[in-house]
Amino acid sequence: MKIAGEATRSIWLEPDGWSVGIFDQRRLPWSVEPLRLARMEDAAMAIADMATRGAPLIGAVAAYGLALALREDPSDMALEAAFAALLRTRPTAVNLRWALERIHAAVRPLAPAERVAAAYACAAAICDEDVAANRAIGEAGLPLIEQLARAKDGPVNVMTHCNPGWLATVDWGTATAPLYLAHDQGVPLHVWVDETRPRNQGALTAFELAGHGVPHSFITDNAGGLLMQRGEVDMVIVGTDRVTANGDVCNKVGTYLKALAAAAHGVPFYVALPSSTYDSATVDGASVPIEERSADEVRFVSGPDDAGVLRRVATSVSPARNPAFDITPAALVSGYLTEKGLVTSPEELSAILAPAS
Amino acid sequence: MKIAGEATRSIWLEPDGWSVGIFDQRRLPWSVEPLRLARMEDAAMAIADMATRGAPLIGAVAAYGLALALREDPSDMALEAAFAALLRTRPTAVNLRWALERIHAAVRPLAPAERVAAAYACAAAICDEDVAANRAIGEAGLPLIEQLARAKDGPVNVMTHCNPGWLATVDWGTATAPLYLAHDQGVPLHVWVDETRPRNQGALTAFELAGHGVPHSFITDNAGGLLMQRGEVDMVIVGTDRVTANGDVCNKVGTYLKALAAAAHGVPFYVALPSSTYDSATVDGASVPIEERSADEVRFVSGPDDAGVLRRVATSVSPARNPAFDITPAALVSGYLTEKGLVTSPEELSAILAPAS
Repeated sequence: MKIAGEATRSIWLEPDGWSVGIFDQRRLPWSVEPLRLARMEDAAMAIADMATRGAPLIGAVAAYGLALALREDPSDMALEAAFAALLRTRPTAVNLRWALERIHAAVRPLAPAERVAAAYACAAAICDEDVAANRAIGEAGLPLIEQLARAKDGPVNVMTHCNPGWLATVDWGTATAPLYLAHDQGVPLHVWVDETRPRNQGALTAFELAGHGVPHSFITDNAGGLLMQRGEVDMVIVGTDRVTANGDVCNKVGTYLKALAAAAHGVPFYVALPSSTYDSATVDGASVPIEERSADEVRFVSGPDDAGVLRRVATSVSPARNPAFDITPAALVSGYLTEKGLVTSPEELSAILAPAS
Repeated sequence: MKIAGEATRSIWLEPDGWSVGIFDQRRLPWSVEPLRLARMEDAAMAIADMATRGAPLIGAVAAYGLALALREDPSDMALEAAFAALLRTRPTAVNLRWALERIHAAVRPLAPAERVAAAYACAAAICDEDVAANRAIGEAGLPLIEQLARAKDGPVNVMTHCNPGWLATVDWGTATAPLYLAHDQGVPLHVWVDETRPRNQGALTAFELAGHGVPHSFITDNAGGLLMQRGEVDMVIVGTDRVTANGDVCNKVGTYLKALAAAAHGVPFYVALPSSTYDSATVDGASVPIEERSADEVRFVSGPDDAGVLRRVATSVSPARNPAFDITPAALVSGYLTEKGLVTSPEELSAILAPAS
């Protein structure tokens, strides 16, 4: 997608043809600072320090990290050491392991001299496949937006929560893919961007939309109910961290409140769901452990002060609780936007998305 | 209620017996700084600059402001001038006009020499009546909390939104009155305090509860749905800015989302409603104009930085929208806690609260 009118991905090969560029996401959305990864250690550090984030993007960075390691030493020993070092950076990231195992499997049978080129090719394929999957999710959602546009005057108002955007993937994003596609095709669109406390990932979504020129308004997480009461929301599209076998949706905390309001006002509520995020092994949302994160994410807000200096200010000195996710029951979901098309019932999900066993 | 263990009201006579003390609410909850009002102009400035806030408290400050003016000059001309000056400070505040008219009516028939004492007596009565009304709201809610306490082990978990607290009244607050009463009577209690973006009035509620020693946790506005899913909320009590004839509740934006979640999980949802806030002249919530406030309330958050300096930091550079209230339909309300007792149907409201015509 675009930043200040320039098309870009969230990860790219530098002009030298071998070093890798990413954005330092610790500085976004307040400043856009590319980071150059020239060694495996740079990639590992970027993942561990959260200079890069988002499951698909972490996988891509790790993949290129392995390629960078092989560039310095293509031996078996170096391959195994780099694999282990990169895997250690974020132990719970499923895409990270998946990407590393894929490259490992591709290069291990090869002679050392052939490994570097194969690793770069495999990393590039991982990136391209992520882009294609997200674009396909966009194609699944586009007709829904077009249909709403035909039925009304003025822009289609879509609400979203958190940052299911292209900055967390290689390009397009998941829930944002239909928005970028619709906007690029001239469908009149306006996006309500939830602030998404704590961590305020809505600021990233707003930054993305601004960069690509999509009309949008930043709102508090509290505002959505009133906007739906007034008929100012035509559709909700959110991302997800995990969809269980029965179609329950685990996503950033607050998603459920928007789903309840959408149901109360007949507003369609869609979930962008890459097949890698469908967890057919977990029965339902009640079985998903909800991560409780640091209370300081609630007790502080970070951002630039009036002089542009990044600071944190306190929101309260009281004890705080910080459950990071909630569960939206499948009954509140109008449909799932997958790279294999729109799925409107939980029963279809397992037929279409579950890995063949 | 208590601050650091010391019982206090939000407005008091200083030891000199005539000047008036309030807290500078522009500094709360980050620092507790009393303001001494020695002249009518001090009171007018405190109201206009929002050093004092909350409809009942503004009325009380204005009442004492009129007494301070008469102390300097008890003539008819001075009385009318002070009345007009104080009324101008917050033109839309209903309690402000009500309090000023009450004092005016009490002192106007008197000889100038008798006016000062009568004005102070009337201002004191206005304060005492506010305290009594809020305490009565507390008495209406207390049995509901006691009943929940008897039915479970561990503390009763009550969720609240915004700052319907004693700092916005003379004492007790509205939605907080049942909480303070229950806590003072030894009922085990834990309060979930919504942050309440924008303006973060939850920080004031948390400050109040901390000062009085009531166990509580500060949470984001997004967390309530998950907490109800888990059965960690036994009851919701909120305040209100206006209840319409049919029982619809206009309150700080986000209230409606909590009411929807409460209904979905069978959590009782109560509204603390002083009779002065019941608007029998407005048919329903759809007829209430919703104030749209400055986008900067959404785009910035203020609080102390790590060095304790009050600053604001940006949350987004995008355009923002800021509807300040929403409407909770009467159907989602379990009952109204009024100074005349618990009212469980909108039909009863007008019988019990509407002024006789």
